[in-house]
Amino acid sequence: MADNLIVIHGGGPTAVINSSLYGVLTFAKKDERVGKIYAAKNGTGGLLKEDFIDLTDVSDERLELLKQTPGTAIGTSRDPLEKEDYEKMIDILLKHGIKYVLFNGGNGTMDTCGKLCEACKKLGKDIYVMGIPKTMDNDLAITDHSPGFGSAARYIATSVRELCFDVESLPIHVVVVEASGRNAGWITAASALADKEGRYAPDLIYLPEVPFSEERFLEDVREKLKTKKGIVVVVSEGLSDKEGKPIVKPIFQVGRATYFGDISSHLANLVIKELGYKARGEKPGLLGRASITLQSEIDVEEAILVGIEAVKAVLNGENGKMIALSRNEGNEYGVHTTAVDIKDVMMFEKKLPENFINESKNGVTEDFIKWCEPLVGKIGNEMVSFK
Amino acid sequence: MADNLIVIHGGGPTAVINSSLYGVLTFAKKDERVGKIYAAKNGTGGLLKEDFIDLTDVSDERLELLKQTPGTAIGTSRDPLEKEDYEKMIDILLKHGIKYVLFNGGNGTMDTCGKLCEACKKLGKDIYVMGIPKTMDNDLAITDHSPGFGSAARYIATSVRELCFDVESLPIHVVVVEASGRNAGWITAASALADKEGRYAPDLIYLPEVPFSEERFLEDVREKLKTKKGIVVVVSEGLSDKEGKPIVKPIFQVGRATYFGDISSHLANLVIKELGYKARGEKPGLLGRASITLQSEIDVEEAILVGIEAVKAVLNGENGKMIALSRNEGNEYGVHTTAVDIKDVMMFEKKLPENFINESKNGVTEDFIKWCEPLVGKIGNEMVSFK
Repeated sequence: MADNLIVIHGGGPTAVINSSLYGVLTFAKKDERVGKIYAAKNGTGGLLKEDFIDLTDVSDERLELLKQTPGTAIGTSRDPLEKEDYEKMIDILLKHGIKYVLFNGGNGTMDTCGKLCEACKKLGKDIYVMGIPKTMDNDLAITDHSPGFGSAARYIATSVRELCFDVESLPIHVVVVEASGRNAGWITAASALADKEGRYAPDLIYLPEVPFSEERFLEDVREKLKTKKGIVVVVSEGLSDKEGKPIVKPIFQVGRATYFGDISSHLANLVIKELGYKARGEKPGLLGRASITLQSEIDVEEAILVGIEAVKAVLNGENGKMIALSRNEGNEYGVHTTAVDIKDVMMFEKKLPENFINESKNGVTEDFIKWCEPLVGKIGNEMVSFK
Repeated sequence: MADNLIVIHGGGPTAVINSSLYGVLTFAKKDERVGKIYAAKNGTGGLLKEDFIDLTDVSDERLELLKQTPGTAIGTSRDPLEKEDYEKMIDILLKHGIKYVLFNGGNGTMDTCGKLCEACKKLGKDIYVMGIPKTMDNDLAITDHSPGFGSAARYIATSVRELCFDVESLPIHVVVVEASGRNAGWITAASALADKEGRYAPDLIYLPEVPFSEERFLEDVREKLKTKKGIVVVVSEGLSDKEGKPIVKPIFQVGRATYFGDISSHLANLVIKELGYKARGEKPGLLGRASITLQSEIDVEEAILVGIEAVKAVLNGENGKMIALSRNEGNEYGVHTTAVDIKDVMMFEKKLPENFINESKNGVTEDFIKWCEPLVGKIGNEMVSFK
């Protein structure tokens, strides 16, 4: 008899989390070893409430739409879990004949994934748990990069390219763009891909990996404005000073969540007040992870791939692992997948390495551009200027 | 002998101002009555400094790129002008054998255009001045709508559609999106086009035409959250209260420019503080007018059309007018152009009429949707949800 499979989404959506779901569902549908295919509605919370969506017989036509659907088509959650929740989960899985469990998510979700696997082993239950990597922030360890990042990177690079052209034609002096990624600067860094020749790329980039100094920032801006009328600065939402204190102080605490002001407007205001230049801040925020228009093609492909590979892995008896992407050797870009121990991934935040940050600490290196380029694909159009 | 022509851009760029330039240049190139084709570099300031770009012999290949170039390829300005500047302009135009003058811009630019025309008439100079409508904010009078608006509308509607799907899949409770248009709510209103069926459209829309009350806003939000876990609110950047005072107080004054804080984060903070719900603000800002990816096709076509018609008009001896768009009669969308007296347009701000604002003053009417739809074109993809 075939065993049932469940897929669960955790954390914030990306532009391609539904593409991974597409990979899972299309592959699982075709494999005879899989019986029912369930999704937990709205993440682990849905699993604990036995709130399942039966996706066994969804038509291929509807599945195709997943590749162009933002958010997550089965919902997601960030519910905190207690120790007893894992035992409860196992009871529910067994009750529904579910042997294969796929968690799609980032660090927090991989932690859940690892703990469930541990609990299964401890209780000697025949359940196979697998992680599918997903994070726009690209902060998952071991995997070369995570599905979701390429599209977020393409969004910021394309938007900044277009913005740079706008700013050049009507100097607003300083535009500060806030990029996602509170602790890891991958998306912020990706804005450098806006223009290989540099003309329509950010003039300054500030990464959360580098302690931020407002004085230094103002000096950098003043210096850039000596030779250029309008500049574009891209900053991570999570910049902090050399003591690790956030530049924009947390303004509210509601339950477990801390709310910060927007660093884009904070720094724009600083430029106006301290330097007397015109400035404004922009914060596309969640639009960057929801944009289907600016999905990276390779990101969609790889998201589908890790979904498929996760199903294959549990069917082959793999357990307690996450599908990771590794680059193929040679000059042409390509990836292969491996299943890595989830314990090496759980709750570890991968930051931008030093060789990707420039010497002045206000930009990225050629090494980063080379690393990032194949993940993002084509950025913007050819443009013309008569100035 | 052929007479020379000059084109001048004023005010902020739109996603299609270069498409109008394409219309002007391609048509002028082919007409024997036009000699040299100049552009004033960076707007009227360039004209006053005799800083001209000679575009007479630009290749067709380069001109094609204009349609996919954001910003303005000849620069633009917001230079304030004095009375004597107009006389100086006339001297310069005559010196360079320029008989045809095309101004592409919004209210302020049309004011310049009208004043130059007046000065020419007063001095009895044989110069023909014509306005090309352009404003993402859509606040130019008489014309049914202005090139630039359709693309800005498509940007906000598509982005909000994708955001609504994201918010539905992971309730963040309240996301406040700030839309451009400080005094006129056209772009803010256009966010309603995100989804005809309403599921992935904004839950609340606040227009600058309606006096804003924070109490009423909080009540609206509370009410919506009774039946929905996550809501999306779109607000104009320029909301003010019933006494006309901006909701977000001006924080700095630099020269003639006033700087306001971001209303998106102000209202998100208000929701957190007063209602205790999670909330965040997003502000795509200038990205919305620079996005070539989300250009409206019809907007590009109409931008080219008004450029061409402006050249035709000055060659036919029209003077002191602006090309306006009027809708054709009948059910199928189509426009024709007329040349309207620039005095009827100069410095007049067209706001959203009452029949486009819903009864509760927190959304738009079907009439608006019907009016706006053909200008914007296709919004987003078909999406799938299994929830």
